Amino acid sequence: MDEVFQEIASLDRLIHEPARLAILTALMACQSADFLFLQRLTGLTGGNLSVHLSKLEEAGLIDINKRFIENRPNTFVELTDAGRETIADYWKKLEILHKSAEKFKKENT
Amino acid sequence: MDEVFQEIASLDRLIHEPARLAILTALMACQSADFLFLQRLTGLTGGNLSVHLSKLEEAGLIDINKRFIENRPNTFVELTDAGRETIADYWKKLEILHKSAEKFKKENT
Repeated sequence: MDEVFQEIASLDRLIHEPARLAILTALMACQSADFLFLQRLTGLTGGNLSVHLSKLEEAGLIDINKRFIENRPNTFVELTDAGRETIADYWKKLEILHKSAEKFKKENT
Repeated sequence: MDEVFQEIASLDRLIHEPARLAILTALMACQSADFLFLQRLTGLTGGNLSVHLSKLEEAGLIDINKRFIENRPNTFVELTDAGRETIADYWKKLEILHKSAEKFKKENT
């Protein structure tokens, strides 16, 4: 039961980091997004967003595709199947950890 | 409505960092704890736990008191009122952000 705190301490920083968590959650909510829309949604600078997208792509959580729309370059981002599962699992896990901690509290007061 | 992702991206790293989140959540659940109990609960090394406790103390979120119990030194840790409010608010905020993201998803699919 008290493993809940160890699980919190060992949350995966790749997903837990606020900027990357915002990106993955935005993609979960929007299905897909282009770079500028994602930047608007998360409020990240372009440079910051680029760095985090690269890390998430390296980890196989997102796909990044550059394409042209009406002759203008456009960067299209979407979750991979693994990414979709990972972010859904992460939010589910946080909810369970919070509930377990609350339960622990009730049993100890 | 879509500010939810900006809020996720700007979550306070002082509290959001997994080890510190585990410490604050454990203290929320236990009311107070000594160093060794906190180490067992979170699974952190002594050195790591020390560093994170110092940061949380500096931020005014916890109180650390060294005392003797049966002639043995004991480090006693508890949340300050501000710390108690901060960690409760943090978990509430995460829950709201998750729900808002899910709502955004439904509206966009």
